[in-house]
Amino acid sequence: MVNVGLSGFAPPIAEAGGAVTDVQWTPPGAGDAEAARALAELTAHPDVEAANARAMTRYLEAEPGLIGVAPARDAIDGLGDRTLLHAGPPVAWDDMCGPMRGALAGAMVYEGWARTPDDADALVVAGDVAFTPCHHLGAVGPMAGVVSPSMPMWIVSDETGAGRAFCSLNEGLGKVLRFGANDASVIERLKWMAGVLGPTLAAALERLDRIEIKPLMAQALHMGDEVHNRNVAATGLLFKRLLPALLETDRPAGDIAAVARFIAGNDHFFLNISMAACKLMLDAAHGIPNSSMVTAMARNGVEFGIRVSGAGARWFTAPAPMIDGLFFPGYGIGDASPDLGDSAITETAGIGGFAMAAAPAIVQFVGGSAHDALAVTDEMAAITLGRNNALTLPALDFAGTPAGIDVRRVVDTNILPAINTGIAHRDAGVGQVGAGLTRAPMACFTEAVKSLARDVGQ
Amino acid sequence: MVNVGLSGFAPPIAEAGGAVTDVQWTPPGAGDAEAARALAELTAHPDVEAANARAMTRYLEAEPGLIGVAPARDAIDGLGDRTLLHAGPPVAWDDMCGPMRGALAGAMVYEGWARTPDDADALVVAGDVAFTPCHHLGAVGPMAGVVSPSMPMWIVSDETGAGRAFCSLNEGLGKVLRFGANDASVIERLKWMAGVLGPTLAAALERLDRIEIKPLMAQALHMGDEVHNRNVAATGLLFKRLLPALLETDRPAGDIAAVARFIAGNDHFFLNISMAACKLMLDAAHGIPNSSMVTAMARNGVEFGIRVSGAGARWFTAPAPMIDGLFFPGYGIGDASPDLGDSAITETAGIGGFAMAAAPAIVQFVGGSAHDALAVTDEMAAITLGRNNALTLPALDFAGTPAGIDVRRVVDTNILPAINTGIAHRDAGVGQVGAGLTRAPMACFTEAVKSLARDVGQ
Repeated sequence: MVNVGLSGFAPPIAEAGGAVTDVQWTPPGAGDAEAARALAELTAHPDVEAANARAMTRYLEAEPGLIGVAPARDAIDGLGDRTLLHAGPPVAWDDMCGPMRGALAGAMVYEGWARTPDDADALVVAGDVAFTPCHHLGAVGPMAGVVSPSMPMWIVSDETGAGRAFCSLNEGLGKVLRFGANDASVIERLKWMAGVLGPTLAAALERLDRIEIKPLMAQALHMGDEVHNRNVAATGLLFKRLLPALLETDRPAGDIAAVARFIAGNDHFFLNISMAACKLMLDAAHGIPNSSMVTAMARNGVEFGIRVSGAGARWFTAPAPMIDGLFFPGYGIGDASPDLGDSAITETAGIGGFAMAAAPAIVQFVGGSAHDALAVTDEMAAITLGRNNALTLPALDFAGTPAGIDVRRVVDTNILPAINTGIAHRDAGVGQVGAGLTRAPMACFTEAVKSLARDVGQ
Repeated sequence: MVNVGLSGFAPPIAEAGGAVTDVQWTPPGAGDAEAARALAELTAHPDVEAANARAMTRYLEAEPGLIGVAPARDAIDGLGDRTLLHAGPPVAWDDMCGPMRGALAGAMVYEGWARTPDDADALVVAGDVAFTPCHHLGAVGPMAGVVSPSMPMWIVSDETGAGRAFCSLNEGLGKVLRFGANDASVIERLKWMAGVLGPTLAAALERLDRIEIKPLMAQALHMGDEVHNRNVAATGLLFKRLLPALLETDRPAGDIAAVARFIAGNDHFFLNISMAACKLMLDAAHGIPNSSMVTAMARNGVEFGIRVSGAGARWFTAPAPMIDGLFFPGYGIGDASPDLGDSAITETAGIGGFAMAAAPAIVQFVGGSAHDALAVTDEMAAITLGRNNALTLPALDFAGTPAGIDVRRVVDTNILPAINTGIAHRDAGVGQVGAGLTRAPMACFTEAVKSLARDVGQ
């Protein structure tokens, strides 16, 4: 007797003396019958296959290059004077999680619109400030993902210069805006970043013209980074590229020394460039009718949302999961905000959780083994359209990292995308309390499959 | 029927219809009967076991710290005014390999003792210059390993400051003295290293007091380096540590920028520090009567030599092997010098070839797979006294790297130490022609075992 699915049916058979083999199985889409029907329609559909082949090729062929740093108001087309960007899909002020409200309030103080974070609510109620997702303007931001007009932004472009993607600069660890902290030390650092760090980096990048990011990521993957939660190698490689140019700029020696110290002291500094590069690669694959390839995964601390190449600007959302990770001393899951940030753009592009095999040190961080790291990457290969052979994994004999999440395969296999992430405190103003490994929620993928099935017939 | 050893005995049995299992086996010491008798005497000998425990503890507890850079004449006690150091065990001028003669001749020009490399022979014949191995004065040098009095040296010390080890500074790749090149460009670079690089690094290190090297190596092993032939991560980590201090020195801005460019452009820059740190750790373990632990492996391009803790200053030598590695285009094994350099001090200390599991990219370089990298490290664990748990290997679930080569185990198992190395052209003045993986020759170990057995009874 073979018992498939609910394991509860097996013991009675065994108790009655029958030989029973229990097979773990869950119906597609975790039992969502409508999703299963939609999946059947989309499976091996020639239009979907052709669209995915195009989307995957565009993703693989995109060549992100770091070309500059500029204030968000100059870099990002369409950013309003009194608009703040935030992570994840759209969310109203009243619904936002603590760290996002904390970061937005901090940004209002930083811009001089509010005197203290407590003034934020009145400003919002008066309609003096607007919010929009980073993703709607070609940008990404880690954790709360808050961007205000005078913050310096990394500018990444494709080879033609036409495609662009943006990300804020990394503030380091500890009390930082992206985790919802907004005290005077946070605002002061942001002002230094706008006044010194941004312009100094801009001057260095002018001398370098363009830094190709994919080779840098590839090298970092050979050096123990997964380029999402571990960026120590990538940051070092970037530092070596930047420093000689930095020293040739006409910026004051004190500024150059301060910038060098800041980068050398922040092993996550590369993360934001990695995110912008991933955004660029995935935007290249976006907007191809009928393609079931995921082009963004992002969280606002309330909802987890995905975008799909063939589904236009639409977000498919589900409640953001809690992360059962490793917490800093004195904190636990009760202190945590649900999953937050645009940084899952890295997993969407095949790195981060998808490239765990490159970074066993990350698995050790959440209590696993080197073998577990390989297993996560192998598992992700079951839900992707292919591999990115420009980003290879030494421990898997230099196989490319699995990339191009197919919503059909997620629904079919019930294997959910793995995401490495930081954990913010649930309250505004506190900051990071831990880090861990989480999974995207199934409902985003079942809804996407249903939507694509409705469109594919037309 | 089980056939042990010579596999030629198996086929006739099989042909006669017998079932035969062929077991690979070689008698200890590759069949050297005297070595086998000596080994039997030393095996489980309580004096040897106790001495090895002490030697291993001293090696494990040594904490190498980078404390400065100074000209060899100031740094190294006992270095004569007209003395040049070279790699490996002692060797006479007439017997030296091409790249060593080329490097020594270049050093004579660099010091102003000779006008051209062609003058070297006359100087030596006239007795105007003396040679001694680096190892005899607490130093190590990669490849030809040539050190002259005015060359800047890394100074590594133990925590007490009493134990010291030295290594030259890395010149980069291409035409360089250590591979036997000695034209004007080589001499000019050496002069810049003495005039600018050395003093600028010395000024930065004064501000830093001391850089602990073992944690830096440990981090590099988690980033794909084996810290012998791959030092890209370690160099990046060092660069991040040095740069902020470098920018705070009062050295001219142009010198600082030139030094930054030089380090950023040379992924092997850390190698020489790694070598000095290994030398310090192993010197701490040297000189314990009856210990069978290897404290140096070094090659002069003619002979491969080892030193053993319990055998004092004696070298046990054998002809240096040829390296069947990967050659640069246009070169082959016929162009190669036999195995050369003191850099096998890294393998002696448990990194390099012993830490292959950390650096699958190195195995790829010689045509192997990630699995082969793990296999080499596992194999080395069969000939070592233990593991260094300060230097762990992610791919082996963070096991320590195998360290403390026991001459008894090498003779008993016929497993020879694996060494990653560069390959120099056999002629003076040419340079590097390839790189590869080689093995230490058995005769060094059988001779050491015989010598220890003679001593242990007394």
